[in-house]
Amino acid sequence: MRTVRVGLLGCGIVGGGVVELLKQHRADFEARLGATIEIAKVAVRKEDKERITTIDPALLTTDVNEVVQMEGLDVLVEVMGGLHPAYECIKAALERGVSVVTANKMLLAERGPELLEIARAKSADLAFEAAVGGGIPVIRVFRDSLASDHVEKLAGIVNGTCNFVLTRMRDDGASFAEALADAQARGYAEADPTLDVDGHDAAHKLVVLAMLAFGAEVDHAHVPTEGIRGLEPIDHAFAARFGYAIKHLAIGRDRGDEIELRVHPALVRRETPLANVSGVLNAVALEGRALGPLLLSGRGAGAFPTAVSVVADILDVAQGRLSGHQGSLVRGIRLAKRPLASMDSVRTRYYLRFPVRDEPGVLSTLTGKLGERGVSIEQMVQDGHSDDGKPVQVVLTTHEAVEKNIREALAAIESQSFSLGKTQVLRIEQP
Amino acid sequence: MRTVRVGLLGCGIVGGGVVELLKQHRADFEARLGATIEIAKVAVRKEDKERITTIDPALLTTDVNEVVQMEGLDVLVEVMGGLHPAYECIKAALERGVSVVTANKMLLAERGPELLEIARAKSADLAFEAAVGGGIPVIRVFRDSLASDHVEKLAGIVNGTCNFVLTRMRDDGASFAEALADAQARGYAEADPTLDVDGHDAAHKLVVLAMLAFGAEVDHAHVPTEGIRGLEPIDHAFAARFGYAIKHLAIGRDRGDEIELRVHPALVRRETPLANVSGVLNAVALEGRALGPLLLSGRGAGAFPTAVSVVADILDVAQGRLSGHQGSLVRGIRLAKRPLASMDSVRTRYYLRFPVRDEPGVLSTLTGKLGERGVSIEQMVQDGHSDDGKPVQVVLTTHEAVEKNIREALAAIESQSFSLGKTQVLRIEQP
Repeated sequence: MRTVRVGLLGCGIVGGGVVELLKQHRADFEARLGATIEIAKVAVRKEDKERITTIDPALLTTDVNEVVQMEGLDVLVEVMGGLHPAYECIKAALERGVSVVTANKMLLAERGPELLEIARAKSADLAFEAAVGGGIPVIRVFRDSLASDHVEKLAGIVNGTCNFVLTRMRDDGASFAEALADAQARGYAEADPTLDVDGHDAAHKLVVLAMLAFGAEVDHAHVPTEGIRGLEPIDHAFAARFGYAIKHLAIGRDRGDEIELRVHPALVRRETPLANVSGVLNAVALEGRALGPLLLSGRGAGAFPTAVSVVADILDVAQGRLSGHQGSLVRGIRLAKRPLASMDSVRTRYYLRFPVRDEPGVLSTLTGKLGERGVSIEQMVQDGHSDDGKPVQVVLTTHEAVEKNIREALAAIESQSFSLGKTQVLRIEQP
Repeated sequence: MRTVRVGLLGCGIVGGGVVELLKQHRADFEARLGATIEIAKVAVRKEDKERITTIDPALLTTDVNEVVQMEGLDVLVEVMGGLHPAYECIKAALERGVSVVTANKMLLAERGPELLEIARAKSADLAFEAAVGGGIPVIRVFRDSLASDHVEKLAGIVNGTCNFVLTRMRDDGASFAEALADAQARGYAEADPTLDVDGHDAAHKLVVLAMLAFGAEVDHAHVPTEGIRGLEPIDHAFAARFGYAIKHLAIGRDRGDEIELRVHPALVRRETPLANVSGVLNAVALEGRALGPLLLSGRGAGAFPTAVSVVADILDVAQGRLSGHQGSLVRGIRLAKRPLASMDSVRTRYYLRFPVRDEPGVLSTLTGKLGERGVSIEQMVQDGHSDDGKPVQVVLTTHEAVEKNIREALAAIESQSFSLGKTQVLRIEQP
């Protein structure tokens, strides 16, 4: 029986899961492939660490080049994360014509188009199911299932930390700080949660999704990105009162001339499946021209969910290698530089919360300033009543409006003497 | 450039969609495959029918054998439905070593294991993404994404007619008859809706899912199957009051020694994604040992959603044909005859609605008869009050119980003089 020799970069929780699943399903995979998948070499940071699986110590090395340059290497699996040396290793492998499986969304967001181009030139595969949505087979669906469709829009809950924090705030009335501390205590959030709660991780994943969904090559630094730090329990309460849940979304839309990409918290109707994707679960919803709506939801992180995706990629890549059809996964992805729409040009509905002094004429000024910019109001609520100059909250939702007009109206409103702070601006989405 | 010659059986709405998508995406597919996909022959019932796409009349025939036996045929696509002559055609093609793509769930439920066996013996592929869940890539996910996982349970909303009827009943308080008439008027239900509303279509699909999820070869006639005719608006109202939605589910569970398969309406908690899959949408939820929960939702029927799935299969099968690796899709599916668990042995929670005379001692007898069989009650409601002997409804939900004990308790209760009719028994599921 033929052997497919796999080199592994990284053997933390995901890498350990991969080794373990390959062991457990060896017989299945041999029946499927007519070949044995063999872990031939494993690069680790420390050789003597405790792992979730047992690995022959003779396979371990602390030198990534020993893996990348190994004689007879068929597939390189990169699960160490970070930009360097992951980038150099993957590039070197592809240039040798070795197919690569990676779970590294940051690297793909930074260097995906370049690496795909090298893979294409060398007839190697580059597979990355685990890079977005962990165990959810979202990449495969975009790449293969939707081969005959055109994705018009997508919206994803792609950061489990954000979703956990927002779920805790909504269900238990927790503050952002309390909910984040809880996420950290449970191991769902890093000690430095910046990448997650400020939306950068979601922006990386959105850029990867945009490659597959829209064939768009985009600089992630230009994606309008907002996190969840500014949300208050009162926003969750108002959202619920209006029939919505607040979710942190990565949104993409093909506008033909431009690609609209944006990451921010948004209100989603409670009776939709997406609004009910709770806790650390992730989801991606899309709208295909032929297919209509499609939603995928599951675990976005964790050793075994992620490892299941990595192993599915290893099987695909091994199949291509064995059949001499290597590179076919990459041939389905065609990229072009496409201009990114400005946030000003976005059309959507809005939730606006104004902290104001409770005095006559406030509502008429608010609605007037909005109306002057063509923003029409769907519903409005004033919460409480105050004689002592303390802020009361006026909350309203709008019909569809253009972001630029909203921003201009808010500038005009916030300069009024009754305004007691920045307006809370949340978009209302129908994914 | 090489050519993959496709023979098409049936050119109704799905077949027409397939032809149209292959035309629209010709350049993409050539880039992906390095080959052209050519519709070489099309068998239709009537040559001069109006279609959603234009087909060269020279390709049309009314003789299926002209397609199946065509010289140089690479892929047979069967989208005519029904058992005969679809079975004979697919069998003949596979025996010639020609790969087959089909959307025919009834045929797969009846003859799937036999056809898969022939395909395996002849190194041909048999792909059937469109057979379950229309445009939802559920087959591909079970077959490929979950290759390194063990599916422990699944629950699907796999019949769009049932889901539409239940959604109308819940949202608008319609009766079953009104909701069904509406589904028929909109073209969502057949003139004879038996296969759909009595659950047989869902049972066919469950048997197909069980092949992939559990490697189980099961006779669909033995799957315990209930439809939705017996549901009343009052059941939807009580379900909502308790925090649930009623969904028609196809449920599968691997119990190790036995496979549990069942099709019936069930109560699902409102705040789950599955409960919010509404109208004609379908969904499949599963629980993988490694992956945890996964949910896929989308359009379960319709020309283009189904055609997208058929075309994805054509690409897979063409890839295998071109690389000389034909048959690899089938090699991942391993079947064994596995015993089916009896309905009596099912353990779940229950919703029980008793039409009873409003008299002293009823509640104590009800709870007593249930308690004697170890059934413990979670909550209980009596709706209304009656002095004139007209039935009132006592509704309760139970903790987990064994179906056999429930049935015995109900027999004891229904023989009481206060009982004014059959108990409504609905299961409460946590998919």
